[in-house]
Amino acid sequence: MSTFRPALLTDHYELTMVSAALRDGTADRPCVFEVFSRRLPTGRRYGVVAGTARLIELIRDFRFDADEIDFLRRTGVVDEAAAAWLAGYRFTGDIEGYAEGELFFPGSPILTVSGGFAECVVLETLVLSVLNHDCAVAAAAARMVTAARGRALIEMGSRRAHEEAAVAAARSAYLAGFRFTSNLAAGRRYGIPTAGTAAHAFTLLHTDEKTAFASQVASLGRDTTLLVDTYDISQGIRNAIEVAGPQLRAVRIDSGDLAVIAHQSRELLDSLGATETKIIVSGDLDEYAIAALAAEPVDMYGAGTSVVTGSGAPTASLVYKLVEVEGRPVVKRSEHKSTIGGRKVAVRRHKPTGTATEEVVVPQGVPDRQPNDRLLQRTYVAGGEPAEPVSLDESREHLRQCLISIPWEGLKLSAGDPAVPVTVVPTS
Amino acid sequence: MSTFRPALLTDHYELTMVSAALRDGTADRPCVFEVFSRRLPTGRRYGVVAGTARLIELIRDFRFDADEIDFLRRTGVVDEAAAAWLAGYRFTGDIEGYAEGELFFPGSPILTVSGGFAECVVLETLVLSVLNHDCAVAAAAARMVTAARGRALIEMGSRRAHEEAAVAAARSAYLAGFRFTSNLAAGRRYGIPTAGTAAHAFTLLHTDEKTAFASQVASLGRDTTLLVDTYDISQGIRNAIEVAGPQLRAVRIDSGDLAVIAHQSRELLDSLGATETKIIVSGDLDEYAIAALAAEPVDMYGAGTSVVTGSGAPTASLVYKLVEVEGRPVVKRSEHKSTIGGRKVAVRRHKPTGTATEEVVVPQGVPDRQPNDRLLQRTYVAGGEPAEPVSLDESREHLRQCLISIPWEGLKLSAGDPAVPVTVVPTS
Repeated sequence: MSTFRPALLTDHYELTMVSAALRDGTADRPCVFEVFSRRLPTGRRYGVVAGTARLIELIRDFRFDADEIDFLRRTGVVDEAAAAWLAGYRFTGDIEGYAEGELFFPGSPILTVSGGFAECVVLETLVLSVLNHDCAVAAAAARMVTAARGRALIEMGSRRAHEEAAVAAARSAYLAGFRFTSNLAAGRRYGIPTAGTAAHAFTLLHTDEKTAFASQVASLGRDTTLLVDTYDISQGIRNAIEVAGPQLRAVRIDSGDLAVIAHQSRELLDSLGATETKIIVSGDLDEYAIAALAAEPVDMYGAGTSVVTGSGAPTASLVYKLVEVEGRPVVKRSEHKSTIGGRKVAVRRHKPTGTATEEVVVPQGVPDRQPNDRLLQRTYVAGGEPAEPVSLDESREHLRQCLISIPWEGLKLSAGDPAVPVTVVPTS
Repeated sequence: MSTFRPALLTDHYELTMVSAALRDGTADRPCVFEVFSRRLPTGRRYGVVAGTARLIELIRDFRFDADEIDFLRRTGVVDEAAAAWLAGYRFTGDIEGYAEGELFFPGSPILTVSGGFAECVVLETLVLSVLNHDCAVAAAAARMVTAARGRALIEMGSRRAHEEAAVAAARSAYLAGFRFTSNLAAGRRYGIPTAGTAAHAFTLLHTDEKTAFASQVASLGRDTTLLVDTYDISQGIRNAIEVAGPQLRAVRIDSGDLAVIAHQSRELLDSLGATETKIIVSGDLDEYAIAALAAEPVDMYGAGTSVVTGSGAPTASLVYKLVEVEGRPVVKRSEHKSTIGGRKVAVRRHKPTGTATEEVVVPQGVPDRQPNDRLLQRTYVAGGEPAEPVSLDESREHLRQCLISIPWEGLKLSAGDPAVPVTVVPTS
């Protein structure tokens, strides 16, 4: 649907490396790059894989047109040989990785890109941009879904994120279990149900609150949500029921001490006979605020800023590292960083009851399989050809199942160890 | 350059409000919406206006095509009357606001959108998405520029941000005074100088470090930067000078205790006769880490994650509020929020020396002008027609001048009051 061209969403140095590798004959050396994280954000017990399907589409469209190549030559980023190579570029290698909705932990090899050095290295920035953003939002959103204990969530944070990041954030939130988004582009692009009725501005536009409510009900019917906190909340609720009748679907409250107000609002609605009218709350809700409302008569939560900014962790710390060249593992040995070389295969080990106990990662080999192991990697691209995509709803269900499978401590909002330990088995 | 269509980067409720307002006859009521922030992020002393030029271009392109309208009708977001209205939509109102690069404080009216209710309300999400993102990055970047005390900065955070947000982040960082970006799309779209040479992968690809360095120098010449920390930094520097000679432009170090290593590296380079070879450091640098390196022999800083994520404040808390309807000020009176009604005019007051002392904001009136006052609002759009844009370089210079004008305490990295107090003068 997007007509955006992704090829320049790339760091300068990737193309200077291509130039140099073409010149010295290493551009086609078979390489394996791996995406993983050395750590989870402070306080988190799991990461959530998100964005891979979006990424694969962008890689499919990753081509350099004449204008782009002209820009790169004119600015001296690439020489003539590299310009010619870029003109013919399409990714012809393989991509394997964890399913969207899969959990990950420090060291999990969530994406493996293999092919010639040059064709793989140019994808580094795009791969990391998509995954770092989408995984960050999905992990925060999943914690909110857990905190909501089955109550519905609507993502309404578009205004707090870059306009295109907002669409991807809506996708990640839905993947994580949110029921609706406010973002229309996400509705169109990904088929996510959208929702929304009116802002305070609509009430202020009218001479009084009842006139505004009457207008909204005339346009949208009683199966709508009236925003009742523009002036006085109690009076707002009385006005809402007076105008719409007790069949009104919902009221929304966007300010104040939501725990107290939800309680008072429920009592008032019930006293007005509106016992089926739902209460939706919003306003700076994060996973902790949602958890704190568990005992209150709230029917749906609207979350904005916190979900689109990853609730304190706006980017996952995923890296894209060269781990294998011509079949031999390679490792950078800077003072404070280390990676494990070699292409890796990962399984998650489970008890017979289905509870995950361990993730086993084997470099340059295959794990010994046990009865309740699940292979974590699937094929996304083979020989340059994308595999059949998995639907967003399937990925959403996959995450739901994964969260059921981890030990219960893993779902706590408090800081703690990763929900499932990762064991890297040295190559024998 | 982008062929993206912005009209659906919009919240569902804006279009349901349009439907209801068209039905009840309020859609064309003259309204004024204002963008402002109630607070700065914790610890910050100023905000930086960024993104407005980008926003004005998106508003110019804000039209609904047949496919988009079909989606909105099919999904029940709008009725027939609203669909017809959207088909003819173009913004015909006025937009005034602070210049890009201008500082702002709590209560500063950084953008004022006026026109009919419906034509203004549909822009809410887009306006806030662009400004909340771009201002957040610019404010963080400006603090890094201050901390760098005249040394050059390169923005290299694309991989830590959504792929399109990365391009906007590069723009904001440049506006704030960064000298380069790694992002090629930002180079092409905004004319920002790009930079970059090689990653650790390029060294690992080759049989040894010297071979990799020789390849890079053969391709890029001695006027390049060699990344010397893939294995042992001291040996890396020796290899770099052995291969490139003492005319090598720069070495980059991306790991370790940068203060210690910068010192050792400078001594080693000097002992090898490479007294003009620059030292570039990178690796999780934020404004505090940069400030801590002020006394070390560092020539350039590379900043990534922190700049693109707003260094702890990934979104500005800007809101878009209806402040005037048919010439009368309107105010929402929820329990814990308040806004000041009426269209506002703002000036910044200065001492004769040029130091800013106060920002004066007058609702529904004009401030009494004093000799060293500066009017803060300019025209962006008049009667739907965009004004001549200001260049990014002019905005960059404007911010540089603004930062010179604030009291010196305002540039401190530590928490404190806003650098300039805002006084809202009640309408008499």
